Amino acid sequence: MKGVLLNLDAALQVLDIAHEVPAQSVPQGAATLAGACPWFPRGTVHVGVVDPGVGTERAPITVLAGGHAFVGPDNGLFTTVAQRLGGVEDAYRIDPGGALAAFVSPSPSATFHGRDLFAPTAAALASGRVAPAQVGPRHEPRVVVPPAPRSDAEGVHGVVTHVDHFGNAVTNVAGRDLADRPDHGARCVEVAGRRLEWVTTYGSVAPGGACALLGSDGFLEIAIRDGDAATTLELAEGTPVLVRRVDAA
Amino acid sequence: MKGVLLNLDAALQVLDIAHEVPAQSVPQGAATLAGACPWFPRGTVHVGVVDPGVGTERAPITVLAGGHAFVGPDNGLFTTVAQRLGGVEDAYRIDPGGALAAFVSPSPSATFHGRDLFAPTAAALASGRVAPAQVGPRHEPRVVVPPAPRSDAEGVHGVVTHVDHFGNAVTNVAGRDLADRPDHGARCVEVAGRRLEWVTTYGSVAPGGACALLGSDGFLEIAIRDGDAATTLELAEGTPVLVRRVDAA
Amino acid sequence: MKGVLLNLDAALQVLDIAHEVPAQSVPQGAATLAGACPWFPRGTVHVGVVDPGVGTERAPITVLAGGHAFVGPDNGLFTTVAQRLGGVEDAYRIDPGGALAAFVSPSPSATFHGRDLFAPTAAALASGRVAPAQVGPRHEPRVVVPPAPRSDAEGVHGVVTHVDHFGNAVTNVAGRDLADRPDHGARCVEVAGRRLEWVTTYGSVAPGGACALLGSDGFLEIAIRDGDAATTLELAEGTPVLVRRVDAA
Repeated sequence: MKGVLLNLDAALQVLDIAHEVPAQSVPQGAATLAGACPWFPRGTVHVGVVDPGVGTERAPITVLAGGHAFVGPDNGLFTTVAQRLGGVEDAYRIDPGGALAAFVSPSPSATFHGRDLFAPTAAALASGRVAPAQVGPRHEPRVVVPPAPRSDAEGVHGVVTHVDHFGNAVTNVAGRDLADRPDHGARCVEVAGRRLEWVTTYGSVAPGGACALLGSDGFLEIAIRDGDAATTLELAEGTPVLVRRVDAA
Repeated sequence: MKGVLLNLDAALQVLDIAHEVPAQSVPQGAATLAGACPWFPRGTVHVGVVDPGVGTERAPITVLAGGHAFVGPDNGLFTTVAQRLGGVEDAYRIDPGGALAAFVSPSPSATFHGRDLFAPTAAALASGRVAPAQVGPRHEPRVVVPPAPRSDAEGVHGVVTHVDHFGNAVTNVAGRDLADRPDHGARCVEVAGRRLEWVTTYGSVAPGGACALLGSDGFLEIAIRDGDAATTLELAEGTPVLVRRVDAA
Repeated sequence: MKGVLLNLDAALQVLDIAHEVPAQSVPQGAATLAGACPWFPRGTVHVGVVDPGVGTERAPITVLAGGHAFVGPDNGLFTTVAQRLGGVEDAYRIDPGGALAAFVSPSPSATFHGRDLFAPTAAALASGRVAPAQVGPRHEPRVVVPPAPRSDAEGVHGVVTHVDHFGNAVTNVAGRDLADRPDHGARCVEVAGRRLEWVTTYGSVAPGGACALLGSDGFLEIAIRDGDAATTLELAEGTPVLVRRVDAA
C-alpha cells in the first residue's frame, strides 16, 4: 500500500498509526482510529483496512468528518472516529470507473482492496487531484457503535470493548456516563468476580495490583500496574463490568 | 539503520515495509519483498536484511531490476522480486573500500551489516552520490527460487511456502499454473487431510470456514474466514497441497 | 503521538525506532535508545515513553547530550544513551505552564503523557519554536545504569540485561571489559549450566548451535544460530554469565 501511495505521488507523507490491531477485528480497529486520527491535522487522509468482507458486496467508501477524510470498507470502522470529529459531513461510495479510473487498478484483486482500491483513492485525494465528491455517488455509511452502558440503582453496567497493547481492558463506560452522579469519586468497579479500586493513574497501586481508571480516551479501563490485566484476570471483549455506587454496595 | 540513512542524507524518505518477517526466514523475506517492492516508484532503493549468514563469506550485494535497486546479503533474498520486475539487469558486490569508503564504517561489526554496510550503501545510492556501478565489481547473485509445483493426472501438486500475517498459508501454486487447464473453475484443494472449496474471496465461506483461493500476489492460499488457517489446520512451510481436478476425484 | 507532532508542525519528519520494547521495560527501552539514537543526525529530537510511573511524581524531562535532545519521563530511560553520547550536557524539567503553554494540553490525561506532554514538547523543540532552556527549570536527571560486571581470577562475571528481537540474550559485559586481558581470544562463556564457544559471528557455529559473541553494540551476547537463545536456554534479565579465562578452567 505504501508503494502504491508513493507511486501515485512521491511527495506524500506516509505514516503508520498501528501495527497491532488483531486481524479482522473491526471493533478494535475502530477504537484505534478513534483514539489516534482526531489528533492529526485537518486535511489528513486516513486509510483503514480492517476488512473481513473484502470481495463481498460491502461498499468501498470515503467518509468526511471534521476536516479529515477516511477511506476504507463500509463496515462501521469509521463510525466512532466520525462521531468524535463531530459527525459525518459527507460520505461517498468509491466508484473505480469515474474520476478515479486513472488511479485505480482496472483489475483489482478480490482479497486486497487496500492495495488496489483504497490506497489509490487516498493518494488521489491527498494529492488534491480528485475531490471527495468526485470519488463516486453519495452513500449512507453503516453505523456500528459499541453497546451503550446501562445505569440502575446498583451503578453503571458496561462491557469490555477491546484490549489494548498493554493488556488493559477498555470498556464502553465513558467518564461522562459517571460525571452527573452525586457520588462521583466514591466508586469501585466489579469485574470477573473481583472488586477493584477506582484510581486516577496506574502508579496509585502497588506493582502487580489491579485497578480501574479512566484511560486517555476518556473510557473506564481495567489495568494491572506493570502487568497484563486481560491475561491475568481473563478479561475479553464482552466481559461485563459494574461501576458500583459505594452506598449501593 | 534509519539513523545511519538520515545521518548521511537528512532529506531521504525512509519507510518500513514490514516488521513481521520471522527472524532469519529468507523465504518469507523474499516473498514479502516480492509482494511489496514492485509497487514503489522506479528509483526506489530497497534494503533487505534477512541475513542469517552475516559475518561469513556471503557477499554483500546491490541488485538492479526494473528501475529499482536492492541492497542486502547475497542469499537469494532478491531472486523473486527481481524476477517479478523483469529479471536482474545488473548486480554488484559491495566493496567498502572504493567509492563507498566515504560512507561505510571502516570497522563494521561482524553481526549487523544492515547498520554498518547496507544502510550506508543505500544512502549513498538514494542520494545519488554513488552510482550503482561504483559500489563494487560485477557479481552474479545467488538464485534461490521456491520449489516449482508439479502437474499430473490428479491435478497440481504444490507446497506451502510461507504463512502470512493473517495466518493464511501461501503456496507455490500460481494462478498461471492452473489457467490452461480445461476444468478451470471446477477444482477443489486437498491439504492436511481435508478437502477445501475453491472460492474467489474470504467472504464466500461462513465465518470460521476453511477455503482455498488465489491471493493478492496471484498464488493459491489456504485461509479460514476471520481465523488463522496455519494454526487451526497445522500448516507450515513445506506442507503439501493438491489442487485436484474434480473429474479426477 | 504522531498526530500531535504533525498537528503542531506538519513539516516534521517522524520515524519509529522500535515497536518491540516490552510494555513498561525501562532497561530494554534504555538499551534500544542507546543502540539506535546516536546514529541519527545531530539535532534529532528523540521521544521515549516507557513510562510505568505516568501520573505519579516522576518528573517529565528534556535531556541534551551530544547535540541530540531526549524527551520523556525521568526514570533512567536516557542514562545509557546520554553516556554513549559523551554525557548529559543539560537537563530540564518540563514545565507545561511556561513557554510550552501554547503547545501542551491544558488538561493532560493522567495516563498518556506521551500524547499530552512529551509529543508537544518534542514538536516545540524540533520546530525550533521553543529552545531547550525554555522548557522549564534545570533538573538533575535520575541515573539508572545496568549493574557493572565483576572480574576475578575465574574471569569476568556479568548478567543478562535484556533479550533482543532475535531472542539473543545481551549482557552487561562489554568488549572493553575484556580487551586488557592477556588471553583475549582464548575464552569461553558459561551460562545456564553450559559452556559455550566464543565466536566472532553467528555463522561460526552450525545451525541450532549456541555461542557467545560481541554484539553490534559492543556487548557480549548469547545466541543460537537461526534460533532463539533466550527461550531455548531459559535466559532472562538477571541470568548470570561467566566469561572464563581458559587457563582458569
